[in-house]
Amino acid sequence: MSLNAAHKDALLRIVGDAGWVDGEAERARYEAAARYGSGRAAAIVRPADVAQVSTLVGYMVREGLSFVTQAAHTGLVLGATPSAGGDEIVLSVDRLRAPLKIDVADRTIEAAAGMRLSEVNAALAAHGFCLPIDLGADPLIGGMAGANTGGARFLRYGDVRRHLLGVEAVLANAAGEVVSFSSGLRKDNTRLALGQLLIGSCGTLGVITRVTLEARVQPQQRACALLIPRDEAAVLELLAVFEREAGDHLSAFEGMSGAAMACALAHAPALRNPFPDETPPLAVLVELSAASSARAGAVNLDLLLGELLSELMEQGKAPLADAMLARGEEFWALRHALSEGLRAAGRVLGFDLAFTRGALFAFRRAAYALLEAEFPNARICDFGHIGDGGLHFNLLLEGDWSEARVEALREAVLDLAVGRFGGSFSGEHGLGRANQRAYDAYTPLQVRSYAAAIADIFAPQRKGPFRLGLADQTQRSMP
Amino acid sequence: MSLNAAHKDALLRIVGDAGWVDGEAERARYEAAARYGSGRAAAIVRPADVAQVSTLVGYMVREGLSFVTQAAHTGLVLGATPSAGGDEIVLSVDRLRAPLKIDVADRTIEAAAGMRLSEVNAALAAHGFCLPIDLGADPLIGGMAGANTGGARFLRYGDVRRHLLGVEAVLANAAGEVVSFSSGLRKDNTRLALGQLLIGSCGTLGVITRVTLEARVQPQQRACALLIPRDEAAVLELLAVFEREAGDHLSAFEGMSGAAMACALAHAPALRNPFPDETPPLAVLVELSAASSARAGAVNLDLLLGELLSELMEQGKAPLADAMLARGEEFWALRHALSEGLRAAGRVLGFDLAFTRGALFAFRRAAYALLEAEFPNARICDFGHIGDGGLHFNLLLEGDWSEARVEALREAVLDLAVGRFGGSFSGEHGLGRANQRAYDAYTPLQVRSYAAAIADIFAPQRKGPFRLGLADQTQRSMP
Repeated sequence: MSLNAAHKDALLRIVGDAGWVDGEAERARYEAAARYGSGRAAAIVRPADVAQVSTLVGYMVREGLSFVTQAAHTGLVLGATPSAGGDEIVLSVDRLRAPLKIDVADRTIEAAAGMRLSEVNAALAAHGFCLPIDLGADPLIGGMAGANTGGARFLRYGDVRRHLLGVEAVLANAAGEVVSFSSGLRKDNTRLALGQLLIGSCGTLGVITRVTLEARVQPQQRACALLIPRDEAAVLELLAVFEREAGDHLSAFEGMSGAAMACALAHAPALRNPFPDETPPLAVLVELSAASSARAGAVNLDLLLGELLSELMEQGKAPLADAMLARGEEFWALRHALSEGLRAAGRVLGFDLAFTRGALFAFRRAAYALLEAEFPNARICDFGHIGDGGLHFNLLLEGDWSEARVEALREAVLDLAVGRFGGSFSGEHGLGRANQRAYDAYTPLQVRSYAAAIADIFAPQRKGPFRLGLADQTQRSMP
Repeated sequence: MSLNAAHKDALLRIVGDAGWVDGEAERARYEAAARYGSGRAAAIVRPADVAQVSTLVGYMVREGLSFVTQAAHTGLVLGATPSAGGDEIVLSVDRLRAPLKIDVADRTIEAAAGMRLSEVNAALAAHGFCLPIDLGADPLIGGMAGANTGGARFLRYGDVRRHLLGVEAVLANAAGEVVSFSSGLRKDNTRLALGQLLIGSCGTLGVITRVTLEARVQPQQRACALLIPRDEAAVLELLAVFEREAGDHLSAFEGMSGAAMACALAHAPALRNPFPDETPPLAVLVELSAASSARAGAVNLDLLLGELLSELMEQGKAPLADAMLARGEEFWALRHALSEGLRAAGRVLGFDLAFTRGALFAFRRAAYALLEAEFPNARICDFGHIGDGGLHFNLLLEGDWSEARVEALREAVLDLAVGRFGGSFSGEHGLGRANQRAYDAYTPLQVRSYAAAIADIFAPQRKGPFRLGLADQTQRSMP
């Protein structure tokens, strides 16, 4: 049902003037995502507290109004962006702010959905703690929980799910029911993991309003190197050595293709080029970090990393062709410039894939062959979280591309990645309008059936941007 | 419905002679739990593979037969023990055995439900890996997943949930449907966390037949100390220092009351008594472990631990009264002898509680006061995983106790722990017949309602030992 004047009045009455967004300039950030995609909202409401969220959600569900839950709008799959048709209400959680509650003895933090990751980390830092979910953006906590964000240090720390102790949400039912499914304790085996269902549910079940998360001890030491592996096969050899010899400390193992690095270096001349002669086909940013300060008996990361690199270059059939030590910031600046560099280079078709570590490289080889044969003007500029099997498989589309041809390329890559190599079509970005078709095609029918049944319990009659239900009762072949 | 001859015939036809248990001696281990409780089975079936589990479960559900899923039968809450009435079938997963599949590059393992934890660890050790969920028993993988076991090294490594990548189960529905809800990947944000629902579901939704778990790197170094804190308040000070200065390595922080240690030392004379003069009221076993071998730059745990202990004893208002370094085995032997020592000392009323770290000590103080005032012949002999907030709150019942008096004591402790201090009545042991009443009384009505609705989807008409449904539509007051 589309929005009429009575609906607008009712919504405005619930949130008041302070929670009502109007005027093109003010609307822009709620209608256009930070990096990719935009739409047109039927209305934009910013509830001030959980009670308002409950009233709003109950009203919208009862009236059959479609709504999108939005946090910082930094997502990449149109999970929080209204459709172009102007028939969806945006419910922003950015006013759900409250003082952060840190339990220092318990090493935990309770945060309202509208708090920024950077705010959480600033508050935790005062106690020597952090929430080490490192992303290329500064999202709100509610959005992170909804999408189950992972990031570049997942290998060591895990995702939001791994840190979850408690979650409060407003279910998308006619009552706008406020639920609190988890106890906030580290150990509590007294119930089904209902709270875990909300993490990564991407707005399909309701609006996450508050979470309690385990915090981690802030590292006192870091050491980074940029590795040039002997060849592709050497990458997993290197990872195995780092896990075995520095497994307590390995906090990132990020692969970057030469093509992606070249785009970043061309776009951002302020970046120091670590490859004055020739950009290698593949480099790995390895980062070690340690909670302990330098003291007798404690790890000395610079020394340990130097030793490991020497050994890895000296042994017979050495997996390491070259390596550079430098202040980590420099390498991370290159790593974080990859996405921006690519966008500046031209039209990009991006995929957020994930595999087992072995399948990642098998897929990559097959994809290079496939594209060379069938899509020669799609240039692979990929990078990824190799330690977790995550691969941001980005294709730079050179020359002219019809939309049909782009779609054919998209299908070919997904068929190869998911259908043949057992990968995920959304390793960390979650579910949104942009990957609805992939969900319908590749998520096993059984999983979609039970997900739809659960959505019927938690969020009956929910109208929103993503459909867990069975649009397609078949499914593609899976490995 | 009780079992008739036709039912027995049908069950026997499904599993064959090799899967049918008869004769008192053979029945004993399926009817009596390893440590606590026993019942009488209507029949005991041991399916050989997933297909047999599916046929069995479908048949039992359609016929309205009640069944209990059993793994190694080492649980402590009667979650796998048939009732005394002889009307429940035991379905043992102990024949669901298949070669373990280790993906070395991916550092993961796929294990059938009938494989022992010790077998999994032996296979992983060949590759320098482990599954570091340390328990006082050697359970089967299926039971560990069903109960979401945690254990003494949870502080560093987490529970089964934390390691889950994939799970296969037979849902308790009329079709005996085999489901595979998770993709086996580290990063996969393409679906609701249906697989997580099965972990810790304690047999209420179906039979877990296979899991894929992340393995961890096996430690190359360990160092242990037994700490005597200045007083109770100093325990959390000590924990904070260890997390800050050795946070990458802290793998256990186990509290043991003097009363519990005295029972163990009295019962097991082979144990070396670390306290020749006087047993302190509280000791803490601290363990550090490191993946790295001793090499330049790497941590030296013995040296680091020694340094930390010196500093902790020297500073003004030192939190540490005394500390002992020794081979870790000695302290762990004492730690693992506590349960056995208690049982030998007399009748024990045990609780598997969990709290926030701060609330643990607040509860403990209140409990000492309560018991002294109202139950003076219940002696507190507790120990616990202080780092995770876990507390095995065991009471030695001295003198004569009527059952009504025991029940009054149980209620008083649970009201204090859960009702007043926001604790869990089953921190790690899961759900079973033994804590059905606590579930009905203390689990929030909202959680029980949604859990019951989910059980209706996954396991309609399931008849079994534990009821997720709403026996009691009220609930006790919660903090």
